[in-house]
Amino acid sequence: MEVRAAVAVGAGKPLEVTTVNLEGPRAFEVLVEIKATGICHTDEFTLSGADPEGLFPAILGHEGAGVVVEVGKGVTTLKPGDHVIPLYTPECRSCEYCLNPKTNLCQAIRSTQGQGLMPDGSSRFTTLDGDPILHYMGTSTFANYTVVPEIALAKINPDAPFDKVCYIGCGVTTGIGAVINTAKVEIGSKAIVFGLGGIGLNVIQGLRLAGADQIVGVDLNPAKKEMAERFGMTDFVNPSEVEGDLVPYLVNLTGGGGDYTFDATGNVGVMRTALECAHKGWGESIIIGVAPAGAEIATRPFQLVTGRVWKGTAFGGARGRTDVPKIVDWYMDGKIEIDPMITHTMPLEDINKGFDLMHAGESIRSVVLY
Amino acid sequence: MEVRAAVAVGAGKPLEVTTVNLEGPRAFEVLVEIKATGICHTDEFTLSGADPEGLFPAILGHEGAGVVVEVGKGVTTLKPGDHVIPLYTPECRSCEYCLNPKTNLCQAIRSTQGQGLMPDGSSRFTTLDGDPILHYMGTSTFANYTVVPEIALAKINPDAPFDKVCYIGCGVTTGIGAVINTAKVEIGSKAIVFGLGGIGLNVIQGLRLAGADQIVGVDLNPAKKEMAERFGMTDFVNPSEVEGDLVPYLVNLTGGGGDYTFDATGNVGVMRTALECAHKGWGESIIIGVAPAGAEIATRPFQLVTGRVWKGTAFGGARGRTDVPKIVDWYMDGKIEIDPMITHTMPLEDINKGFDLMHAGESIRSVVLY
Repeated sequence: MEVRAAVAVGAGKPLEVTTVNLEGPRAFEVLVEIKATGICHTDEFTLSGADPEGLFPAILGHEGAGVVVEVGKGVTTLKPGDHVIPLYTPECRSCEYCLNPKTNLCQAIRSTQGQGLMPDGSSRFTTLDGDPILHYMGTSTFANYTVVPEIALAKINPDAPFDKVCYIGCGVTTGIGAVINTAKVEIGSKAIVFGLGGIGLNVIQGLRLAGADQIVGVDLNPAKKEMAERFGMTDFVNPSEVEGDLVPYLVNLTGGGGDYTFDATGNVGVMRTALECAHKGWGESIIIGVAPAGAEIATRPFQLVTGRVWKGTAFGGARGRTDVPKIVDWYMDGKIEIDPMITHTMPLEDINKGFDLMHAGESIRSVVLY
Repeated sequence: MEVRAAVAVGAGKPLEVTTVNLEGPRAFEVLVEIKATGICHTDEFTLSGADPEGLFPAILGHEGAGVVVEVGKGVTTLKPGDHVIPLYTPECRSCEYCLNPKTNLCQAIRSTQGQGLMPDGSSRFTTLDGDPILHYMGTSTFANYTVVPEIALAKINPDAPFDKVCYIGCGVTTGIGAVINTAKVEIGSKAIVFGLGGIGLNVIQGLRLAGADQIVGVDLNPAKKEMAERFGMTDFVNPSEVEGDLVPYLVNLTGGGGDYTFDATGNVGVMRTALECAHKGWGESIIIGVAPAGAEIATRPFQLVTGRVWKGTAFGGARGRTDVPKIVDWYMDGKIEIDPMITHTMPLEDINKGFDLMHAGESIRSVVLY
């Protein structure tokens, strides 16, 4: 079938919105009509050429929501009409990783997914001339129809609005999950969040949900303060207004350091600061941001020997088929907010404007509506 | 009273065995007759001048065992005749740290201890001319009598032999505790231990105690193999005999990486290797070794984002007054071994020979017998 897609033709080039061919689902695959998709920094990371594993031409997008149109042979858990969120971290429930409660990093289809291919090693997308176009993160939501493995689809509440819950496909789950699944923040904790963008705001509302007593937000942009307060931030710190070192300032502000600190910037220097302002004896620091290729984190080992713990999180430690539907329900029940974070919407034809808004720092999240 | 002590007179100089004055215990202090003391790398670290917080003149030693001779005013938990192990990490049971189950780093007397003083800010040791000599780590076990705060003494089984259980004052507890308290290793785990010295061997017997399935020991010295096997090592790896990178070799040997890896070398390059050969998704790496001043650990944040956890441990995460008596009982019950690790004993007069044996790599542990 012919579908409309924004194709990433090469590193650093704008997406080309065009018509491409999409083959129907093979065994254990599902054809999904994408109704909405967010534009995430990870798409930009790959499009810019900074991602050393980036491949072109490809159809990017990994933060979508839509409706099942057709299922391939052997698919048992989904049927046409089901509402779904594609998962860039699948959940096969039978690999060594899925069977270990300590991780969410299902490895069932990882090698083909990393090559931009479906699990059988081929692509469903081609140009109208028949040249192959690669998938991206197993999701390729920058197309109005896409084919996704069954194990990479979370079935969600059919009443949930696509234009909001698509954000649960990445940003919301990553931020809230970092708090709930990775850090396992306890009621009464003190926390520090670095970076108040789309991930940081979700960390903040995750902390509020977890019952944190003090939620410090750190960002160089004072315009971030108001929105972060809406999501639960109790203290705002602008490093450019702090005299002297930021670490002792934050340690003092939190009465000894954060019980939990979160980096949502991707800056390795900030990751170090986040670790070092975690509380001596028990503070845990969680890396969420994606760093530039080759960048390294560093600290003195004394920071760890005196009790700090350094962790990271991918997709918020969430097992997508199990956890994503729950987070959708939390949204529907009003336990979490999404609407104020969707600052811009646009049709697929204008998707490059979404990237422009991101570059300019004007959007929290832009969502493409099909 | 006049006591015999080995005095550290300056960085890089041999200890001077001499007679010094020791004042009796003040309030909440205890006079202990030291019967035996181990010589640990941390004593050497300070004596060499590498420790940036090292102070002289001081009476080193922090791995002792002895008998209570006299208690100061207000001491309620100990009486003359009690057998004790001095604790360089005290356990006051009432500070913010003692009341947090996540840490063992009691802060009650930390600032004075770091200055080589008793909690009231003074020293009990002087030269025969009346010049002050500093305490060290709150213990100063390189003297046949020493004064120690009540909260820094663990009361132990009076049947336990001083010349063996003194080692529980540091090395044994650090190694076993890293496994049990810090890593909380589960039955069936796979582990990798870097460095098969006095700490590494205790990590290995801790892993055996915890029911680990695979215990890989890594050391450049093939002479370490036999002893490590005696303590439970299942696989020995000499990095100098591995072709290519050590990390993929160890990942392959353990079928994906260690569920837990331990650095007992103090080398920051080894600490990185230990982290990176921890299992993707859930592997935890524990830093035990003390690195040179200013040395930093580094890695790509991707290592943490994909699920590895970087931790450290001090005194094996043990709460000394509570945990040290239990470990003494484990020794008495034959659950752990200590005797083969005490490779050399000597009188105080020959203490410098113990340091020579350490430098030459000939000893696992030398113990001074008073």
